[in-house]
Amino acid sequence: MTTINATALQHWISEVFIQCGFTAENAKISAQVLVEADLRGIDSHGVARLSGYVRLIQKNRINPNPNFTVSHRKKTMIHLDADSGIGLLSAPYAMKLAIEATHDFGSGWVGISNSNHFGIASYHSMLALEHDYIGFSMTNASPLVTPANGKQRMLGTNPMCVAIPTNQETPFVLDMATAAAANGKLEIAERENKSIPNGWAITKEGENTTDARALKNGGMLLPLGSHKDGGFHKGYGLGAWVDIFSGVITGANFGPWVPPFVSFLDPLPNLPGNGIGHFLGCWDIDGFQDKETSKNKMDLWIQTLKNSIPLDQNHPVLIPGEIEHYLKQKRIEEGIPLVDAVCLDIEQLSKQLNMPSPL
Amino acid sequence: MTTINATALQHWISEVFIQCGFTAENAKISAQVLVEADLRGIDSHGVARLSGYVRLIQKNRINPNPNFTVSHRKKTMIHLDADSGIGLLSAPYAMKLAIEATHDFGSGWVGISNSNHFGIASYHSMLALEHDYIGFSMTNASPLVTPANGKQRMLGTNPMCVAIPTNQETPFVLDMATAAAANGKLEIAERENKSIPNGWAITKEGENTTDARALKNGGMLLPLGSHKDGGFHKGYGLGAWVDIFSGVITGANFGPWVPPFVSFLDPLPNLPGNGIGHFLGCWDIDGFQDKETSKNKMDLWIQTLKNSIPLDQNHPVLIPGEIEHYLKQKRIEEGIPLVDAVCLDIEQLSKQLNMPSPL
Repeated sequence: MTTINATALQHWISEVFIQCGFTAENAKISAQVLVEADLRGIDSHGVARLSGYVRLIQKNRINPNPNFTVSHRKKTMIHLDADSGIGLLSAPYAMKLAIEATHDFGSGWVGISNSNHFGIASYHSMLALEHDYIGFSMTNASPLVTPANGKQRMLGTNPMCVAIPTNQETPFVLDMATAAAANGKLEIAERENKSIPNGWAITKEGENTTDARALKNGGMLLPLGSHKDGGFHKGYGLGAWVDIFSGVITGANFGPWVPPFVSFLDPLPNLPGNGIGHFLGCWDIDGFQDKETSKNKMDLWIQTLKNSIPLDQNHPVLIPGEIEHYLKQKRIEEGIPLVDAVCLDIEQLSKQLNMPSPL
Repeated sequence: MTTINATALQHWISEVFIQCGFTAENAKISAQVLVEADLRGIDSHGVARLSGYVRLIQKNRINPNPNFTVSHRKKTMIHLDADSGIGLLSAPYAMKLAIEATHDFGSGWVGISNSNHFGIASYHSMLALEHDYIGFSMTNASPLVTPANGKQRMLGTNPMCVAIPTNQETPFVLDMATAAAANGKLEIAERENKSIPNGWAITKEGENTTDARALKNGGMLLPLGSHKDGGFHKGYGLGAWVDIFSGVITGANFGPWVPPFVSFLDPLPNLPGNGIGHFLGCWDIDGFQDKETSKNKMDLWIQTLKNSIPLDQNHPVLIPGEIEHYLKQKRIEEGIPLVDAVCLDIEQLSKQLNMPSPL
């Protein structure tokens, strides 16, 4: 396992984006979002995605120099056209607008169309924490998940994220895919030659499977809840909610029409919208009660849950975002571990763009 | 199975609330919320709950004549003190405030403390649909659910609901508990002398169980996802989100301190907040793009999902809220079916309050 220093990695990613035609400032922000994923242990959404973004830029599906425009607004409700730009940029830009609206009105919401994948949702939600606001973000994604009682890929793994400020404790950051398991987990199982648990995927024919290659063989992911008894209509409902907020009400694509992340698959014909969509915003907790009171109560909430009785004495109950926070501290000190496939990707990209490898 | 006409039931429930000291107007609204649950097939939250509310009123834990006050506000963020009133009233009152704020600012949010159980979340969210707004509602509830990797009751079944307007199609209404299964499902299994699926509950000792009496024997419900492989940290995160929005940032109680619905259990000592809390609000979809466009796209989204390939040809893919909408039409025509236990409850309540029985 190779490790790399976070600052060095960020610098290299930034250079890659500059080589692709990004401005220095835009390259820096995009690199920050990716490295934050690697630092927080969401390895599937960090530098591992970089070559995918580059291929989309080279195919003219991502505009390296977008002009973001607010095309419609009603005070707290703002619509942003991302001009085919990368979500790594349009989402933080939108959060800035949402934060400004929240200064003015107590809350603020941005719906984005004509965008591309935005990396980890938590990066964007957490921008609100600096202002003691609650941050919220969602995005739709290309279809890999079946509806409950269905056997067709109709929804993405469609994550939602809420970040809530605290006083002494680590902020609460729930960042979750609405599928039982995201596709990254199947890829890891395949790499390790392991089977996957029942309840993550079904085959093309709709049969249960423990084959890690289920998706590659035309199968699909299951919504959170996995099956009828497990309440998979709820996971389906959550994924649908994210799709509607990100795609339907923003004018982006939705459901089966969300364009694929992989550059070798073309978008479907006759799309009902523009690009991929996101939904982001903030609430000012100071609007309900004094914010210091709320932050202190958040500390109490966290301490209470952490001190509740664990199933296994060696594994205390965790708070959403706690592991990611811990990993970030650790990886800042010890470096970011990279699996061989990602190292190879980095070497190839360096060669292709005629840049020195950071490894 | 007895059936009862919805209007007759609503009239009788309204009289019960008047007998308990409600004003005629407040009694009418409260009865409407309960009957809507019975019409929509959420039988556990309709007239079946009425005797429970009456006992809380008789024990002075619900104030029959509350004075709702806005105690704090920052434009779109409004805090409501419900004066120990019933949630069946405070929640629709709050939605009115949220709708007014949305008229003015494009969105509006109300955090409620010092309240009591608010019935079905969907009643409140759906109030927004009349204005072509998206409605949102959550409430915390007394602790029955363990955190992921825990074995202690720390969270309620904490529902969340989002209602989204359409044009021709039935509105999208996702109304879901964040536990794998709500306790009503265990009660039905117990009544029918059936076992429950693995993944709904664990025993007091943290063991898996299929015993429908698990909760009564000191066990607890599991979060959506049911177990580690199923992603129960996500269900736990969702339940936590609802608890924090409803209780922590509103000044209501939260976690293990949320007061029990049953009148024979007293609230814990040294409560950190006031009563039960709710969080409600709206977004004006017209703030992103012309609302007719969004409503037409919602129709397309719904038609697309409904026409996707089902697992079983006889059971098409459903849209959240579709079954409830269908049941409502059916029950308006054919009457509301009542199980024996609920009929007995109605007879006893009529006798106790010296009213003619509606059955």
